[in-house]
Amino acid sequence: MQRIHFDTEHNLFRESFRTFLQKEVVPHQERWEEAGVVDREVWAKAGEMGFLLPWADEAYGGLGLKDFRYEQIMSEELAYINEPGFMLPLHSALCGPYITEYGNEEQKQRFLPAIIRGECILAVAMTEPGAGSDLAGMRTSAVDKGDHYLLNGSKTYISNGLLSDLVIVAAKTDPENKHAMGLFLVERGMPGFERGRKLKKLGMHSQDTAELFFNDVKVPKANLLGDGKAGFIYLMQMLAQERLTNACGAVAGAEAAFQATLEYVKERKAFGRAVADFQNTRFKLAEMRTQIDVAQVFVDRCVMDHNEKKLTAEVAAEAKLFTTELLGRVVDEGVQLHGGAGYMWEYPICRMYANARIQRIFAGTSEIMKEIISRGLKL
Amino acid sequence: MQRIHFDTEHNLFRESFRTFLQKEVVPHQERWEEAGVVDREVWAKAGEMGFLLPWADEAYGGLGLKDFRYEQIMSEELAYINEPGFMLPLHSALCGPYITEYGNEEQKQRFLPAIIRGECILAVAMTEPGAGSDLAGMRTSAVDKGDHYLLNGSKTYISNGLLSDLVIVAAKTDPENKHAMGLFLVERGMPGFERGRKLKKLGMHSQDTAELFFNDVKVPKANLLGDGKAGFIYLMQMLAQERLTNACGAVAGAEAAFQATLEYVKERKAFGRAVADFQNTRFKLAEMRTQIDVAQVFVDRCVMDHNEKKLTAEVAAEAKLFTTELLGRVVDEGVQLHGGAGYMWEYPICRMYANARIQRIFAGTSEIMKEIISRGLKL
Amino acid sequence: MQRIHFDTEHNLFRESFRTFLQKEVVPHQERWEEAGVVDREVWAKAGEMGFLLPWADEAYGGLGLKDFRYEQIMSEELAYINEPGFMLPLHSALCGPYITEYGNEEQKQRFLPAIIRGECILAVAMTEPGAGSDLAGMRTSAVDKGDHYLLNGSKTYISNGLLSDLVIVAAKTDPENKHAMGLFLVERGMPGFERGRKLKKLGMHSQDTAELFFNDVKVPKANLLGDGKAGFIYLMQMLAQERLTNACGAVAGAEAAFQATLEYVKERKAFGRAVADFQNTRFKLAEMRTQIDVAQVFVDRCVMDHNEKKLTAEVAAEAKLFTTELLGRVVDEGVQLHGGAGYMWEYPICRMYANARIQRIFAGTSEIMKEIISRGLKL
Amino acid sequence: MQRIHFDTEHNLFRESFRTFLQKEVVPHQERWEEAGVVDREVWAKAGEMGFLLPWADEAYGGLGLKDFRYEQIMSEELAYINEPGFMLPLHSALCGPYITEYGNEEQKQRFLPAIIRGECILAVAMTEPGAGSDLAGMRTSAVDKGDHYLLNGSKTYISNGLLSDLVIVAAKTDPENKHAMGLFLVERGMPGFERGRKLKKLGMHSQDTAELFFNDVKVPKANLLGDGKAGFIYLMQMLAQERLTNACGAVAGAEAAFQATLEYVKERKAFGRAVADFQNTRFKLAEMRTQIDVAQVFVDRCVMDHNEKKLTAEVAAEAKLFTTELLGRVVDEGVQLHGGAGYMWEYPICRMYANARIQRIFAGTSEIMKEIISRGLKL
Repeated sequence: MQRIHFDTEHNLFRESFRTFLQKEVVPHQERWEEAGVVDREVWAKAGEMGFLLPWADEAYGGLGLKDFRYEQIMSEELAYINEPGFMLPLHSALCGPYITEYGNEEQKQRFLPAIIRGECILAVAMTEPGAGSDLAGMRTSAVDKGDHYLLNGSKTYISNGLLSDLVIVAAKTDPENKHAMGLFLVERGMPGFERGRKLKKLGMHSQDTAELFFNDVKVPKANLLGDGKAGFIYLMQMLAQERLTNACGAVAGAEAAFQATLEYVKERKAFGRAVADFQNTRFKLAEMRTQIDVAQVFVDRCVMDHNEKKLTAEVAAEAKLFTTELLGRVVDEGVQLHGGAGYMWEYPICRMYANARIQRIFAGTSEIMKEIISRGLKL
Repeated sequence: MQRIHFDTEHNLFRESFRTFLQKEVVPHQERWEEAGVVDREVWAKAGEMGFLLPWADEAYGGLGLKDFRYEQIMSEELAYINEPGFMLPLHSALCGPYITEYGNEEQKQRFLPAIIRGECILAVAMTEPGAGSDLAGMRTSAVDKGDHYLLNGSKTYISNGLLSDLVIVAAKTDPENKHAMGLFLVERGMPGFERGRKLKKLGMHSQDTAELFFNDVKVPKANLLGDGKAGFIYLMQMLAQERLTNACGAVAGAEAAFQATLEYVKERKAFGRAVADFQNTRFKLAEMRTQIDVAQVFVDRCVMDHNEKKLTAEVAAEAKLFTTELLGRVVDEGVQLHGGAGYMWEYPICRMYANARIQRIFAGTSEIMKEIISRGLKL
Repeated sequence: MQRIHFDTEHNLFRESFRTFLQKEVVPHQERWEEAGVVDREVWAKAGEMGFLLPWADEAYGGLGLKDFRYEQIMSEELAYINEPGFMLPLHSALCGPYITEYGNEEQKQRFLPAIIRGECILAVAMTEPGAGSDLAGMRTSAVDKGDHYLLNGSKTYISNGLLSDLVIVAAKTDPENKHAMGLFLVERGMPGFERGRKLKKLGMHSQDTAELFFNDVKVPKANLLGDGKAGFIYLMQMLAQERLTNACGAVAGAEAAFQATLEYVKERKAFGRAVADFQNTRFKLAEMRTQIDVAQVFVDRCVMDHNEKKLTAEVAAEAKLFTTELLGRVVDEGVQLHGGAGYMWEYPICRMYANARIQRIFAGTSEIMKEIISRGLKL
Repeated sequence: MQRIHFDTEHNLFRESFRTFLQKEVVPHQERWEEAGVVDREVWAKAGEMGFLLPWADEAYGGLGLKDFRYEQIMSEELAYINEPGFMLPLHSALCGPYITEYGNEEQKQRFLPAIIRGECILAVAMTEPGAGSDLAGMRTSAVDKGDHYLLNGSKTYISNGLLSDLVIVAAKTDPENKHAMGLFLVERGMPGFERGRKLKKLGMHSQDTAELFFNDVKVPKANLLGDGKAGFIYLMQMLAQERLTNACGAVAGAEAAFQATLEYVKERKAFGRAVADFQNTRFKLAEMRTQIDVAQVFVDRCVMDHNEKKLTAEVAAEAKLFTTELLGRVVDEGVQLHGGAGYMWEYPICRMYANARIQRIFAGTSEIMKEIISRGLKL
């Protein structure tokens, strides 16, 4: 179904980004998967091309493109090449805004240029062992010591956990008030900041995921983002955009899985006919096509709403819930229609299947999404 | 989720139509259900208000409102009051266009004014005993006898079967070519045109459904619509709009079922709490809310595409498939959340459940929709 | 799949019961549906044949057949002829045991002979307006007045509500203790016992369902069943058997719907082939066949466990949950494969669809079943 | 739910096998996963304990335990430790019977003792690149050259592809008759028999999977199994038992995934409560518990039917279809209830998820199962 919300400049941007991926990413994917981490260099190259935080002000090195469609395009193109968890959505769309939105002028000047050049790689550390998506259950604490905060605790399942140079760490700031939380900019090399082992995962093999430990890390007050009690609200505000980013990638991932499957069943023979000729195959494909079209129209509408600052937390949750559940069904059916080939890592559908499974979990599980949506119903 | 494609004039139209329904339809619904048929008078009243074929040219008595959003509004409002199969979508949106699109000037002048005034009630007769959605398997035939056609055959599951004054009948016109089909305007009282018994159905009780019999009916050539070989193409063209109409009504029906259920679970107590307080209830409602929002955005987009004549047969099929399957799930879950009350006819959700079941079947089953969509994939 | 737990005597019993149904039930079904109630006479005829409480002791007129397979056979045969809510499961398997299990000798002598002869028709009244499956939320009360209890309250959705001569009514017996509940034998004609209107339902049209009102009904102490505080436990104990009865009927109903559909798609043509020749049809049938076979083996095992008094409340809940959800899917798919015919009341699949919907609700909804099962997991 | 078809000797066997696994398998699992293949030595150890082909006659070194319950126990125990594709089901239950059933006395004497001792490891090679489950589409051919057959072709997705010493290879034997097929015993070292690279898979990492190539391999006539035209029938006959073996493992895998999840949600806290306390969690667990119990009873019944040689191809297909689809749902829900942990390879549920995906595909996909079942319906 034709998409209607992109203009010429978006299409040109897509072409340019696609060229970049074909040149700087695709040739390295297999090696990065084996290594469990991408090369640092690719960030600098992306930065050079203007693909990192393109919405940031030109004063800091950004392009001032305050239009979420550019982020959407990048999420889509990454999904199409089966790198859904790659740097850009995480560094640019998820972590970057914390600094542009909640950082003060000094912090922006200090960090943004390197972030935008891709020299300072970002991560955000919320999840803890034993707490999951439940931010109120967080145990990491930051105690005010006058000129600095003393940070203690640990975080887990942190994407870019090993590569990151600057980590936005959520920590409790008032033992009397479990909702008082601050966001701290912890820099590579700060004493007491340790990285754990790289975690082996079902998929997303090119993305390094790790535990982080903070033992009496002295974080200067200049590295506190915004109000030290308001971190909870900051996280909530950013999560709506993060979930929209997820949704953009998830529907694109579903499209990619659909196309890979369509191509396979047209070529593949069974019982003397193309697999695509069986009614079961055709019906499955028709169901997928329908649901992807429906999802795409919805996500595109959400992107435009977000551009107008009208996207609510509930609708962002709906977008993430619907698209990631859809992705889960499409990759599962895609594997099935591939038969034995679908289980072999060399076929893209296999990696899509492995990569997709986390998407119903990260940035808030489907269950959390339902909680958010149901709260909007004033039950 | 806010809808964005309606303007002030649409909202005014909706108000006016809603007032009409509250005054002329709602008070009679129970009686009509018992009788298995609506009063003829309501058609004249709807005609007087301009609700029948509002898109028809003013020359014939129409309002010239060539904007499908008006049809959408009427389908929605009828669904909201649980009359999804009521006169208007059938008479106005489904049958009417055959005459405005394929009728010649003489036919338009002869029939349209009474149709638009609601004095001549329409039906369309495609389905046959033993052929279902398979138009090529049709047996009714019309043999060219010089100045008239001799029509023989029978039709079944015809909505407005008893009430209708003018029936658009599909019949084979060439025994050598199974795709040659004509559409004939058969009028009440023509010798040899008989109506069968009213068929008892699971739901849609206010709508009369019947078999029709044609025994040597002499249909004047002046009552042939357009090209006597092209009926198949005419039916296909009209079905896209019919399916969009179904989709408009189905998503509105889902919304109505959702609202009825939401209201019920907020009030209803179980085990000392409102049913709405149980996590299972909240999650089911969140899933419904999500899917209805997603579906509504898609259908609204399809309506605007249709206004621009860009709606393809495949996308119309997607819209019908997605929304009627959704409606089926929502009314089922709605009944379940009502518990025993959901099985009692006095509760709207019960009638919604009964009414909904045909929507995955009429105007082409979900399986037919999948066939159409899969053909679009060039498998 | 061959069933292995029936012996010759069971097969003979089945033949005999089937003959009875063909003679005394099938010829009247349409009339009973129209009337919304069955003829009283059929109960006496069933009693004459020994089909009511066949497990009761011979001293009271029973056959002493303490083998649940006979109840299973009757539930199955009734489901096969599309009378799933008909007298026998309700009167015989659900209500009868309250008296044989919890009644004293005097009560058994007083009531059982007429019950077994089918002259005294039973009902059980638990559900109240506003409380549903939540027995603890019940408001009907019985106050001890020395030689009698004074009963006040109302009940709803009571099957056999109008026909019944003896109603087992659950009522709170201690305002201080919300779990203290007694079961009272309320007889037709007791002053203050009134019946409400017959409730119109989606299906189960031959079974009369009504509200019952109790206004200062003086129930003699001799009509209290067992311990006046232990009614809650009695209900729980009986519900396991009731749910097994439901499961027996539900899987048989699924089998009947499957067979009706199988027959239909073999005969029905579409696009020049039998509907049964389409892969989608074959796959749907294969899924149904599989699930019904699996369910049947499980239910048969549960019946044998119940004969050995080993059926737990949790496993009975599993049987009801699995089979009634299965039934729901099978009748829905069956209607779909019938196309338009599936919506017409004259086709058995249509009535099966309407009858099936209550089965996921009555005797505890699917949600209640999940609560029971999850409690067994010691979460 | 209590299982009823095991006797004391089965329980003792289970204990003994479990001890073996804990000692000889569990300590090596991680290493084998990394290596992508198990140690050869473990086969000899299993053979020493009598766990390989225990049903084979004592004359060849077997135990003469002609009771499929022993195979079932081994499949279950392997599933419980998350080695569903490990040696035993493949070597013992799937490959072994080809030789005991279709081998002649000379072949049995020549091969069985080493097979039973675990010194000669088996594989079966049916699937070809480009043909999948469609045996009739096979291209590998064996041409009769008088004293030998000349074998040419290639096979793919062969489990034990690298480890195996003796491979049962299916090949076409008559270019005029596409159903004429023979089974050939190809031995390690035969000139022209080459192994391809080890295939990387989504899961089942300890099992080596490879392509096999046959270039002018001279297979002595003494290595033909049974009738050289009847291979197709042999494969069909053996596949019923293979699918039952799959079903035994799949339901046990579902049980293991359920238990792992149950344990996790009881311990894991979120929002101040155990995850197990949320109604959504409890309902999901109740649904799983129900479906696993139902499946287990069915599979146990199938095992007893198979012991009596009454298991039909259709019912075996039902068992595989139902249990592997169930397994797919349970591991998916299990991952979801684990949240982020479910995506980490160190958690068993993650590997279970990865291992499970092939089970709906191997030994005939779910779609093939539906074809088989629907043929049984005489459509």
